[in-house]
Amino acid sequence: MSKKRVAVVIANNFEDIEATGPIEAIESAGAEAVLIGIEPGEVTGKKGAVLRVDTTFDALPADSIDEFDMLIIPGGGAPENLRIVDSAVDFTRRFVDSGKPVASICHGPQLLISANALKGRKTTSVNKIRDDIKNAGGFYEDAELVVDGNLISSRTPKDLDVFNQAIVDALGTAVNE
Amino acid sequence: MSKKRVAVVIANNFEDIEATGPIEAIESAGAEAVLIGIEPGEVTGKKGAVLRVDTTFDALPADSIDEFDMLIIPGGGAPENLRIVDSAVDFTRRFVDSGKPVASICHGPQLLISANALKGRKTTSVNKIRDDIKNAGGFYEDAELVVDGNLISSRTPKDLDVFNQAIVDALGTAVNE
Repeated sequence: MSKKRVAVVIANNFEDIEATGPIEAIESAGAEAVLIGIEPGEVTGKKGAVLRVDTTFDALPADSIDEFDMLIIPGGGAPENLRIVDSAVDFTRRFVDSGKPVASICHGPQLLISANALKGRKTTSVNKIRDDIKNAGGFYEDAELVVDGNLISSRTPKDLDVFNQAIVDALGTAVNE
Repeated sequence: MSKKRVAVVIANNFEDIEATGPIEAIESAGAEAVLIGIEPGEVTGKKGAVLRVDTTFDALPADSIDEFDMLIIPGGGAPENLRIVDSAVDFTRRFVDSGKPVASICHGPQLLISANALKGRKTTSVNKIRDDIKNAGGFYEDAELVVDGNLISSRTPKDLDVFNQAIVDALGTAVNE
């Protein structure tokens, strides 16, 4: 079986530990993290962490979803930067539709809202965007981990231990094509 | 005629110039800015500006709307901090219902969304929250200034010249009770 590949969508102003924590967790589990950005080069987190983008949404082939086993959407200011980029929204929408695991934390669901992917779905997030989740047709739950079908979500960096374990578990059962 | 009074709702992580700019503008026009916060003390902007809160939502009397002629909602991270506080949301809702001018900029409409005040109303904002405005039943417009009834809005600090002029104009025609 080939190495599992996880798409991590990223942009400037990401919440540092919400990107670096899950990346470390999936790499420790033997999977590969592929950072997808809006533009080639580096992105900088709210607290100064610098990550290099592996590829961009525009550079991905049309059938790119097939190359990945999971999508991770870190929080901070990155999701609101991604949600205004059509190619990022399209990628997210197709990923949710694929049925493969989609994990978001903190402000991550802002990207899912713009992908119109939360209708009738249970999600948690930082409480600051709970009203936006409800208005998007989603059901907001205040819990450290919420799993609804292929959607996995947590609230804040305080939930990272359970969040990281959940994504590693979901990756273990994901089918590698 | 007594001095006009403008409520400026504020919290930590405000976009500095979106608070200090409008405050200067209304004070130059001879009005008084009253900063209303979640807790007594100081709040700090994204870029380090420090403002002292004049009063808190909880300290305001039930008929507090009568004491003010206008509401201003600066952007940045403050609106998402205010929108999870019931007393701030209630104050905003009552202000919109009063018919007195309510001016928001950038992320300011996040507070209006949580106050359920945008249904059928035209608003602009930073484009990062445009989908949330639409999902709240509002009509998002990409313009430097949008006026719909008592709602006045602009997008970003680049629009501040026209925004500040609009709030000073609205204050000039506001009825002082």
